[in-house]
Amino acid sequence: MSKPYPPVYYSDYLQLDRLLASQTPKSAEYGKPAHDETLFIIVHQVYELWFKQIIHELSSIIHLFAHDYVDEKNIGVAVARLNRITEIQKLLIDQLRVLETMTPLDFLEFREYLLPASGFQSIQFRLIENLLGMESEQRLLFNKEAYYVYVSPEHQAVLRESEHRASLFQHVQRWLERTPFLDLEGFQFWPTYRATVERMLQNDRAIILNNTFSTEEEKHKQLQELSKNEESFAALFDEHKHKDLIAKGRRRLSYQATQAALLIHLYRDEPILHQPFRLLTVLVDMDELFTSWRYRHALMVHRMIGNKIGTGGSTGYHYLRATVEKYKIFADLFDLSTFLIPRSKLPELPEEIKKSLGFYYSVKSNTETQSYAEKH
Amino acid sequence: MSKPYPPVYYSDYLQLDRLLASQTPKSAEYGKPAHDETLFIIVHQVYELWFKQIIHELSSIIHLFAHDYVDEKNIGVAVARLNRITEIQKLLIDQLRVLETMTPLDFLEFREYLLPASGFQSIQFRLIENLLGMESEQRLLFNKEAYYVYVSPEHQAVLRESEHRASLFQHVQRWLERTPFLDLEGFQFWPTYRATVERMLQNDRAIILNNTFSTEEEKHKQLQELSKNEESFAALFDEHKHKDLIAKGRRRLSYQATQAALLIHLYRDEPILHQPFRLLTVLVDMDELFTSWRYRHALMVHRMIGNKIGTGGSTGYHYLRATVEKYKIFADLFDLSTFLIPRSKLPELPEEIKKSLGFYYSVKSNTETQSYAEKH
Amino acid sequence: MSKPYPPVYYSDYLQLDRLLASQTPKSAEYGKPAHDETLFIIVHQVYELWFKQIIHELSSIIHLFAHDYVDEKNIGVAVARLNRITEIQKLLIDQLRVLETMTPLDFLEFREYLLPASGFQSIQFRLIENLLGMESEQRLLFNKEAYYVYVSPEHQAVLRESEHRASLFQHVQRWLERTPFLDLEGFQFWPTYRATVERMLQNDRAIILNNTFSTEEEKHKQLQELSKNEESFAALFDEHKHKDLIAKGRRRLSYQATQAALLIHLYRDEPILHQPFRLLTVLVDMDELFTSWRYRHALMVHRMIGNKIGTGGSTGYHYLRATVEKYKIFADLFDLSTFLIPRSKLPELPEEIKKSLGFYYSVKSNTETQSYAEKH
Amino acid sequence: MSKPYPPVYYSDYLQLDRLLASQTPKSAEYGKPAHDETLFIIVHQVYELWFKQIIHELSSIIHLFAHDYVDEKNIGVAVARLNRITEIQKLLIDQLRVLETMTPLDFLEFREYLLPASGFQSIQFRLIENLLGMESEQRLLFNKEAYYVYVSPEHQAVLRESEHRASLFQHVQRWLERTPFLDLEGFQFWPTYRATVERMLQNDRAIILNNTFSTEEEKHKQLQELSKNEESFAALFDEHKHKDLIAKGRRRLSYQATQAALLIHLYRDEPILHQPFRLLTVLVDMDELFTSWRYRHALMVHRMIGNKIGTGGSTGYHYLRATVEKYKIFADLFDLSTFLIPRSKLPELPEEIKKSLGFYYSVKSNTETQSYAEKH
Repeated sequence: MSKPYPPVYYSDYLQLDRLLASQTPKSAEYGKPAHDETLFIIVHQVYELWFKQIIHELSSIIHLFAHDYVDEKNIGVAVARLNRITEIQKLLIDQLRVLETMTPLDFLEFREYLLPASGFQSIQFRLIENLLGMESEQRLLFNKEAYYVYVSPEHQAVLRESEHRASLFQHVQRWLERTPFLDLEGFQFWPTYRATVERMLQNDRAIILNNTFSTEEEKHKQLQELSKNEESFAALFDEHKHKDLIAKGRRRLSYQATQAALLIHLYRDEPILHQPFRLLTVLVDMDELFTSWRYRHALMVHRMIGNKIGTGGSTGYHYLRATVEKYKIFADLFDLSTFLIPRSKLPELPEEIKKSLGFYYSVKSNTETQSYAEKH
Repeated sequence: MSKPYPPVYYSDYLQLDRLLASQTPKSAEYGKPAHDETLFIIVHQVYELWFKQIIHELSSIIHLFAHDYVDEKNIGVAVARLNRITEIQKLLIDQLRVLETMTPLDFLEFREYLLPASGFQSIQFRLIENLLGMESEQRLLFNKEAYYVYVSPEHQAVLRESEHRASLFQHVQRWLERTPFLDLEGFQFWPTYRATVERMLQNDRAIILNNTFSTEEEKHKQLQELSKNEESFAALFDEHKHKDLIAKGRRRLSYQATQAALLIHLYRDEPILHQPFRLLTVLVDMDELFTSWRYRHALMVHRMIGNKIGTGGSTGYHYLRATVEKYKIFADLFDLSTFLIPRSKLPELPEEIKKSLGFYYSVKSNTETQSYAEKH
Repeated sequence: MSKPYPPVYYSDYLQLDRLLASQTPKSAEYGKPAHDETLFIIVHQVYELWFKQIIHELSSIIHLFAHDYVDEKNIGVAVARLNRITEIQKLLIDQLRVLETMTPLDFLEFREYLLPASGFQSIQFRLIENLLGMESEQRLLFNKEAYYVYVSPEHQAVLRESEHRASLFQHVQRWLERTPFLDLEGFQFWPTYRATVERMLQNDRAIILNNTFSTEEEKHKQLQELSKNEESFAALFDEHKHKDLIAKGRRRLSYQATQAALLIHLYRDEPILHQPFRLLTVLVDMDELFTSWRYRHALMVHRMIGNKIGTGGSTGYHYLRATVEKYKIFADLFDLSTFLIPRSKLPELPEEIKKSLGFYYSVKSNTETQSYAEKH
Repeated sequence: MSKPYPPVYYSDYLQLDRLLASQTPKSAEYGKPAHDETLFIIVHQVYELWFKQIIHELSSIIHLFAHDYVDEKNIGVAVARLNRITEIQKLLIDQLRVLETMTPLDFLEFREYLLPASGFQSIQFRLIENLLGMESEQRLLFNKEAYYVYVSPEHQAVLRESEHRASLFQHVQRWLERTPFLDLEGFQFWPTYRATVERMLQNDRAIILNNTFSTEEEKHKQLQELSKNEESFAALFDEHKHKDLIAKGRRRLSYQATQAALLIHLYRDEPILHQPFRLLTVLVDMDELFTSWRYRHALMVHRMIGNKIGTGGSTGYHYLRATVEKYKIFADLFDLSTFLIPRSKLPELPEEIKKSLGFYYSVKSNTETQSYAEKH
């Protein structure tokens, strides 16, 4: 028989005595209490609590992927936890509206007391970036200094260490590279896909040339666009070109992983690819939300302190604006859409393959002629 | 070679000439233009456009389920489309904030011109209710009249007809009842689950009785609660009691379907149950959002016209408030949580069963000793 | 010259060492770590931080109103702070979506360790209710006990004490009662308004009787509705009836304050009534959002634990559902719309009155014939 | 006696027969019905309906400002309508989530049928930009062509015409330039403000130099930052420099209007400046939301079509990204914060001035010693 557990009291469980005693406005300390400083503190504390939760989720997901084989169940778990992160991110963004109820003039009442403190010094946010897979080279210098220069020595240590741990990006990449579906006996994805694309492009060219609806000038433009598309596909089909783009920092995902990601997108209707597809999708959702948060945050800073030097000496707005685009982690997954082709043009999978991408139960019961269909 | 398609122009494609010419305020017609009537019209037109989209999705989902066998792929499709509906529902709710930028006084400027028109007459919304599975008996009379009395004869016909079509609720119920997993050779869900529950309840009783932390009075209370729980489980395990509750309108989902829903919740980690679990979850999401929409809508009416007789003679607020709870469709799925038991206490599935609930590929490759693990 | 302030470090300022060390899951303590317990803790801690902020704002607003004369400036300040509360409330509601990413089954992994802790024991939330003006009689008993029985003795003391402090409701009521505009030399609001209403109702009756568009039956219905409206106006114009409704708990706002609130609504276009009108509006917004939060929260509990006895022995869902409506504070302000009349039918204010409700500058400059108009 | 109005029927009033018959998917027309095309159409139609509403509000506001004198009441009205626009904008942004429930692969099912149609051709959105005050020179060329080249000749005419109408920006600017408060007898804002700023900067320099907390290196950095701030103030106090920045396109708001905007921000607590301050605030809100919408829209396009040539030949993503920042209308109002100074350092207004910025009623009653205070 399991033993009873001692009774728990709400405010003890949540340690509210400490939590609610952790707001000590500087303005009061200096005898000039500014009503809005409490908001400023609490808003940032809430951010840090959410950051802790995001780190909790990211670490657990990285742990799930840190094996040579990721159980299907765990992909479902990872998707659920990434989904949770995106729900938190929506709050992070909406929360800016609360901070914006403080007017710039009200902020000035206590701003000088806080110098040089700055959200720029949030260790947890940096950790999140590193856990996701932000690369040191990717980071912008700030006043010609690396981001960690602005934090305490022990915090610097934490950050430097985290830079060397395997990130979510790296784990997802390896997981993609390991996919067995690129090379199934009886179906080789890459050559099949390539052949299809080439037929498609030829067809597009023909359509343009024979398009009785369009003027010569329009045709000319359309052919220009077509060649642009042909080029990008050419780059896709040439591993050297791909490595080149990676070297130039314009791609990041390995050639093999890119192929796997495309396969998952194109054949996501096969049961065994459902969860992998959801995984790739939620990674893009998450990246999109982080990037939106950076953008809205930059706007808020602009409106709060204008172009003035931000706390922490940051020329806040312009620096933040610059990070928005540069700090995407899964940009390659956004770009994937460039290479999708309509289902209608997609080569049909051989029956045997289809079967092997379905559920054992269905297959078994079918072969046993006690049809799954009749039962379910 | 596929032929080119004639070029399309944005505003023709969207038929903007008609769309944007379909707002004719009565106040202007009567020579007393009220600025806000345009908002009133457009907000309601947007609602109707979203309703059309929701009907489009619901009909397609019902069509997917209208077979004796629902392909796994289609469950994924259904989930995606239900998810889309929930995203639309979030807009329907937030949209009330836009309408609330019109003050009651501004509404009065044109309200009398619209009588007795009322959102109560939205055919599409009624259709949505019927497609979901609202039962005529479930509906509240309004001024002692059935809901369709207030619409035009041809609209009445449409509604009456829709009442007799099979609803999403009925299709989902049948699909649940067909599940083959309740009775697998080597694993019978219901008796196993029941035995587990009974052990659990005995254990709970023992814990309470031996709980050195609690006073006699507390123990007394806890035992009362326990018996309440025992009762609800008793009702669950007695098909007659269940039918009774259905007759009384306190349950709706059939006994067989209820068992299947519970199984899906408890064993949702098995790959083949991933999508079914997501389906049950999104149905609850959708119900929750409709019910929230009804609630927020009632509040808005209260604040807009107070307790006055609403347009269409509805004592708006009170009627709307009454519908909020009564009009849940999948209330049984909410109640399911009452019967869940911790994973830790859940009987382990036999290996053979586990295997058959997994993916064919994995199993096959494993047996072929060219382990899936090594490859993926 | 003002002195420099010692430099501040972000994580010290926010006391992150304590804050981020205040999450200690019970499940880990008992050696059965449940991944989602961290979310459960952090979500509730964030709620409590926001509650602290709301209390900070409410207290400051009550302080602003705790004088025989509220400076116009301070009404603007109060509106801004109430607006901030509504922005926070929107987060409180959306935050439920994050909690709902935890499934009922996942909750069961650690739920038993927390008993009998319950959000029901949140002192801060009770304080908010009391600061707003919740009345003890208004509260529902819970298992036949008053709400404070469930918290620690010292917390009980805090709550009982707060029940006796003057609430926002009471302060707003007094401020309304003090309004000088009900009785201006040359303009008496109440009799003027009453006469207008009576003319309006007679006119409505005539319209119905002479309405060639409607059948006898329709006319009958319309006349019934009309009498209902006449009754509610009758109650408004009879102070005894009003006091009666208050005694019966169907009204709360005093007769004098109700008149003032109506005046503000009807003549809100006069500059001096702009802020008072915004104040009444944001009070309704706030009430609407609290009530929505209660509703969504009840739904979440239903879906998380079904009809099971909630932590803290609460039959969670049904109790929470019951509070939603009963716990409105400013319901009378919602009802006000019942008594609004169209601007077009509103008696024009005498020029002298209009002037005195405008800005001094404009008036002065106008009289000085160096017209404001020409300058601005 | 006013006459009765003919009864109105909901679906006639909203012209639902036309509205709901205005969706004709191309994919169906070509015999390859794509389920998601309906969503694509309806989402865009909803956008256009909201655009119509925004145009309705903007036009009415511009009309209110198209006089040499804007009545205080009308500023309140303008604020309310701009607030409504911001509530609509929040929907426009959230609505992208609905569109994103359509996956890139599903879009491909019908994308080719729509070419070259593109949201780029939304006349209403262009009109909104022009009504707000977008300048032709400000616009980016697209494939080396002006934006209107891509629309039908009659639509081009509409757009060109709108470019020459006075915009919201111009009206607000004129209204600011007309403000009488910059030069009141007994108080001249600009010189007073300037003197204050100069004292403040000197003080800051002294603080830095005497700051015992900071190292020489830190002091050096801080002095650099200080000079940057001094420069930006210098530019503010030199009308020629200001005109220079305007010529360079780095400022837009006239010198006089900039001063007025600053005055309103700094003395917004005076009753007569409440509404003007709210006006400037909501203009920034609106700009912020448009810019956020552009950003999220660009992200959505990136994820939907990658870097492929967008419908309408637009290299969608990159073009859209480029517009986000460039298309701000009220950027100068964001920048204002750069020049705010703490209330504590703000020169007190002379009593006589204060009085004249208050309400006539208060002043009058005070002077008449039947103090407003005692009454209110």
